[in-house]
Parts: sequence; structure tokens; C-alpha cells
Amino acid sequence: MTDSGPAGQHTVRRHNCALVLGAIASSPGVSRAGVAARTGLTKATVSTLVDRLVTASLVREEGRQHRSGPGRRGTSLSLSPDGPCGLGVEIGVDYLATCVVGLTGEVRDERVRRVDNRDRPPGRVLARVAQELGRALARAEGERITVGGVGVAVPGLVEAPSGRVIVAPNLGWQDVDLAAELRRRVPVLPGDLVVGNEANLAAVAELDALRHRDESVLDSFVHVSGEVGIGAGIVLGGVLFDGSHGFGGELGHFPVQARGPRCPCGARGCLERLAGQDAILERARADDVETLVSLLDAGERTATAAVRSAGRMLGSALSAVVNLLDVPTIVLGGTYARLHPWLADPLTAELTDRVMGSPWRPVEVRRSVLGAEAAVRGAAASALRTVLTDPDTYIARFTQAEERTTNSVGNRIEGGSGSSPAS
Amino acid sequence: MTDSGPAGQHTVRRHNCALVLGAIASSPGVSRAGVAARTGLTKATVSTLVDRLVTASLVREEGRQHRSGPGRRGTSLSLSPDGPCGLGVEIGVDYLATCVVGLTGEVRDERVRRVDNRDRPPGRVLARVAQELGRALARAEGERITVGGVGVAVPGLVEAPSGRVIVAPNLGWQDVDLAAELRRRVPVLPGDLVVGNEANLAAVAELDALRHRDESVLDSFVHVSGEVGIGAGIVLGGVLFDGSHGFGGELGHFPVQARGPRCPCGARGCLERLAGQDAILERARADDVETLVSLLDAGERTATAAVRSAGRMLGSALSAVVNLLDVPTIVLGGTYARLHPWLADPLTAELTDRVMGSPWRPVEVRRSVLGAEAAVRGAAASALRTVLTDPDTYIARFTQAEERTTNSVGNRIEGGSGSSPAS
Repeated sequence: MTDSGPAGQHTVRRHNCALVLGAIASSPGVSRAGVAARTGLTKATVSTLVDRLVTASLVREEGRQHRSGPGRRGTSLSLSPDGPCGLGVEIGVDYLATCVVGLTGEVRDERVRRVDNRDRPPGRVLARVAQELGRALARAEGERITVGGVGVAVPGLVEAPSGRVIVAPNLGWQDVDLAAELRRRVPVLPGDLVVGNEANLAAVAELDALRHRDESVLDSFVHVSGEVGIGAGIVLGGVLFDGSHGFGGELGHFPVQARGPRCPCGARGCLERLAGQDAILERARADDVETLVSLLDAGERTATAAVRSAGRMLGSALSAVVNLLDVPTIVLGGTYARLHPWLADPLTAELTDRVMGSPWRPVEVRRSVLGAEAAVRGAAASALRTVLTDPDTYIARFTQAEERTTNSVGNRIEGGSGSSPAS
Repeated sequence: MTDSGPAGQHTVRRHNCALVLGAIASSPGVSRAGVAARTGLTKATVSTLVDRLVTASLVREEGRQHRSGPGRRGTSLSLSPDGPCGLGVEIGVDYLATCVVGLTGEVRDERVRRVDNRDRPPGRVLARVAQELGRALARAEGERITVGGVGVAVPGLVEAPSGRVIVAPNLGWQDVDLAAELRRRVPVLPGDLVVGNEANLAAVAELDALRHRDESVLDSFVHVSGEVGIGAGIVLGGVLFDGSHGFGGELGHFPVQARGPRCPCGARGCLERLAGQDAILERARADDVETLVSLLDAGERTATAAVRSAGRMLGSALSAVVNLLDVPTIVLGGTYARLHPWLADPLTAELTDRVMGSPWRPVEVRRSVLGAEAAVRGAAASALRTVLTDPDTYIARFTQAEERTTNSVGNRIEGGSGSSPAS
């Protein structure tokens, strides 16, 4: 903490700062007077806090609106597109992805590297993750982007808030203290480090994307992330539902065949062994998703049959999900978003046959807006959420980093290497 | 409406009356001053409303507590055990049940009649329901019990708030306007008529029963009603979750065998065809549940194997439910409550094998407190809820009925036949 005032005063400022930033985030273009009205704070307090947020590049202030009519018009406040970014990392079963996303949702950097993480020792995977993370941080620094926090998406059960991965069957992981391991390997990690389940993060990212598109009417759905594993994110009334311990949404181990193939989870005949990406590729005799899509585009029969069969199995499992949860919409994400044109029909046919309420309330099956990028975007957004809910702590860290290279608080340098708190 | 004052005044009294009754219901033994403190109403207003509630037998007032110490002690207020009762009716696949439950949860009357309602025309079943309802009302009248409302539990999808049954596969019903049909057949039906899904009503009744037992720590669970059909009631954080249209919790049509037996729902291999009561009885070669329990008690092998097989299938389906919802507890209700000693082990073994988080957070499998009575009790409670949330309307109806046979409002007669609003 760089704050030198009494603790009580700091707590109040911290609270009010978050209140003001929240008001600006939810009403882009609002005036200072508007923020005062929304928060119940005095105009003087709002002005001081807005100045603080503007100096830290969290908020952008646009010139006075010279409109006709009586009264002085306020300036227009919104989240700054030049402010801090969240750095998202996704540890996929067969890839590593990173992305850098700003406060207003724009993607500043995005990389996906194909790499097989299956059955490698966690240490080797983590070394690679640390390397990718370091490169993404260096690129951000080169672009003079301030990284406000890091979020990591993993295909497994995560213990909150420690960031320990309890189990990730498709990676062969058990009890990996991911947050601690990454902090050890990347000592300059900026801001908070948040670890989450990839399917849950993908669902939240999709919800945000739908809101940006003004499709917020779609506030209850199950987002299915189809990769090597299959995960689900359950959104009910605009809020992620992830259960009593955050372990919810594990659709991949839905029992399909009692005597089916053995799954790394220990059970047999799990949905992801029969309808996951690898199962489809093997049955379609395709090496990767791009090849598969080419075969499907050409109407090749084996590939088409493989995807249709997966669609039926997925549809049967999802019929059980809809019968249980009565959600109106299924969103196909990950690889399934790519395969949507061929998956949707057999999947919808199963839902129509098996969902009790479907003759009266047909279930909508739609393609994810974000596709395979949803989880890593969600990871980046989860990192930014810690900045948005506690801007004062971010500012304290940011100015501390700045002070090392500049002599005045809040006077952001325009060149040099000191612009990132990671430096 | 019997109220003669202006509309605004009536609306306020109606609101305040519900507020006062709610405060008394949630704090049994509270004083008038305590109610005033909890509601923010003046003591004078509280006194007037409490008098109104006492006169209507909704609230019981017990004598001044003569304790030592300064200050006048208030009287102690609580819901009246002699007040109105809810009449619950359950239309089972192979039985009709009725029960009468008071405001404080005591059961005043309960009857179960074995009758096969399968594939009978809805009209014939409804005639029988109307007959049972009429008998229950007559018994209540004979006991001078005021029935404040009627709740009906059905094994199917119900459209709220119309009370229309959209589909009930095991009854062979489709589009039956149950509420309207019952009102037509039983013109003296007292108070509101509420129709609900039996599994959801059972789960709410179980939640209430757990609260009465001070087990309110158990506030997230899936209650499985095992009868001829299988239904689930999902309770999350102390609240029933029944989905976007109230169609949630349909566990019975969980897909178990792609080429399994045909189900009245239209699909194949549904859980309830393979692990429901009739499937177990057939496999165990038992005519009814009592015979089955005798065979199980005697350790008969065919019966034991039949129940264990059902337990494994149920466990496999419930593993998918827990993987999806991450609920810590499964409550076995209905016939499954009777079979709990033989079902629990194979069921728990499947959960242990298939639930991803179970090595870290084992799932608890417990027997329902209410057993097969849960749904009809829930139906009765749902009828009383309308009295508790709008006591003023109940009082208006009640005094209207009283006025027909007595000459003064609120002067409850002690004898004669006019004590029930159904008369």
C-alpha cells in the first residue's frame, strides 16, 4: 500500500473509487454530475476521484459537449480504451493461447500455439506456459500496454480462491498449485493472478459478448465448450452458476456407454471420449479440425457421418441437461462452433425428441459469438475484473511502479521501458 | 372483495397485514412491540392488524409473560395451530393422496388410495380426484377445520400460473386444464387453487421439513422422487430452481440405453423405464413395494439384484447431475426413501466413480425425511402459502362466508355447519 493517510480514510476512498468506476462502466458517456447522482457522492468527491481515475488511464474524459440549450454541459466519461489490459492465458489440451484485452473489450494481442500438453509432466507444461506468459508481457511492454492482471483458464476443477488445480484429467494433472507455480516461474507477474475453469470462463465471456451486441435478453443458456474435453458453463438469469464448490458444468463425463472406452477420469464411456474433438477426428479420419472442415465442406461421407454421430450423442446428453435445468438456449462453443453447420441438425433432432417441454418451448441451438477464443478472452476479462472492482489498489500498484522510473505520481511517461508495472 | 373503504386504503392494509403475519411466522413468540420493530409499523397499527389476524384464527396470542424485571412484557404471538389449513391433493400414477396441513405444519388428515390412473381418460381420473377432494373437504368440515386453499401435485409439466398440465406422460395426459376442470367439478372449492409439479412440490416440502428440524444448513440438494416416474426437485441456496418455464427437474427421461424400452414420452431407454418403481418390481418379481421390502428384508437374491441394478443406473444419472450442478447432497424420496437401505450403496459407488470432485468433496446420499408423503404435503403447503402471503384476502373471504351464517364479522361460531368457507 502506498497510501499514507489513515486506514479508515483509505478504505472509504477505495470503496468510493470502485463506486465511481462502476457507475462510469455501466453508463458510458455519463457526466460527473450524473456519477454524483448515481452514487450519492458529492460532486466534489466525484471530481477528485474521476481525476484520479483519469490520471491512471482507467477513465477517458471527452471534451465539453457544446450543445445548444441552457445550462453548462458536463464532460463525457467512459472506460478508457488506453487503460490497463487483462492478460489471459489458456492451457488447452493441445494448445496454449494468450490474449490481451482492454477495459472496453478490444483485443490488443492474441496468440495460439499448437502444442500437445497431454501426459506431459505438469512442470514441463508450466515452463512452456511461463514462457508464453513472459513473451506476451514483453509484447505488451513493447506496445506500452499496462497489464493490470493475469487470468488463466484450465480444463479442470479449480479450488477458489487459491488457484490450485484439483484435477484436470485430459492434462493428466492432479493437485497442481498453478497460481503458486506461475508466480514462482514469472516473478514479475503484474497485478492479481486468477485461475478458473475454461468452460466457466468461456460462458462468462460469451455472456459479455452478447451484452456488447445488445443481446442481453439471452441471459439463461448453457455454453458448451467442445475441445478434446467437453465442458459446460451454465448461465442463469445473467449470472454464472458453478455450484457449491465451483465444480459445476462438467458435461464431458456424462455417461453415454456403460461399456464404452476408458476415460482418464477413471470412468468408462464418457461423452468427451465419444463426441469430443479427438473422437470426431479419429472417426472422420482427419488429422486436425481444419482438415475436417475441408472434408465436411466437400460433403465427404465418413467425416459427415462422424460429426452427425457426435451431434446425436451430444444432443442426447444436452436433452438431459435441458430436462433438468429448463434453459431455453444451448450455445455451441470451441471446436463445436466451427462444426455448428453439421452438428446443429442431428443435435436439435435429439433435443426435439427427448426434451419434455420442447413441443411447447423449442430449445434454441446457436453458434457461439466468440468460438474457440471464448475461454482465453474470459480469462483476460477475469483479470480485469479485479481492476474494475478495486481500482484504488490497482492505482496504488501502478503509481508505485511509475515512481521507480518517473518523479511525479500519475505523470505517465511517454517513452522508455518503465511504463509497465511488470518491469 | 368485501372491503368497503377506498382502494388505496385497502391496498395498504393488505400489504401491512401480510408484513405483520410474515414477521410473526418468521419469529414465533414475538411480542407486538417486536413486530412493530421488525416491520417499521407503529404499535397502534400493529395492534389493530394483530387483532384482525387473531380474530381470523391466523395468529395465536398467548398470555402476558409474568417475568421478573422492569417494564411490561408483551404477549407472545405465533401462527395459530387452529387456523386455516391447506388441502393437498396428489395425482399419482398408481394412487391418489390427500392431506390437510395447518399453519404450523401439523398434519390434520391424510389419506392415500391405491388406484391405477394409467391410460385412463383424464375425465375419469378427474372425476375420482373431485370425489376424493369432496370427501376431504367434508371431513375437514366435520372437524370444523377451515380450508384456506387447495394445492394439487401432478407428475407432469405444469404451465404457471394457469394450472394447465401440458404433458404428464405416465398418466397419458396432454393439455389438460386441470385447475379449470377441478373448479368445474368441485364448485365449493375454497380459496386459491394451485397446481404444481409433484417433484418440485416434494423438494420444497422436504426443505421445509429440514428447516423445522433445524437442518437448514442443508440448503442445496437434489430431491429425487422415485415413483412409477422419476422426478427431481433442485434446491439451490434454499430456493427451488425450476427453470425458465418451471419445467426443470425432469430426471426421469435421462437417456440410459439408446436402444432401451420405449417410454410414453416418445423416447427410448429413459431412466424411469429402467430404474423406476415398476421396472424394479417387475425385475424383482414383486407385486408391490411392501412385498418388495419383505423380499429385501429376507435377503432374496433376485429382489436384491433388481434394486442394486436400479441403484447403479440411478447413480450413473445422478453423477451427471452432480457433475453439472455441483450440489453436495442427494435426497432419496418417494419409493426410493423406502428402498434407501438397499439403494444407497450401489448408488454411492457410482457417484464416487463418476463425480469429478468426489475424491475432494464426497457427495452425501440421504433418505428423505418425508418419504412418499412429500409431494402431497408440498401441495398442501403451496395452498397455505397464498394465505400467508395475502392474509387480508383470506380474511375477506372467510368473514364473507361467516357472515352468511353469523351476524357479526369475525365472531367465529363454535358450533353448527357454517364454519368452513366451503359450505
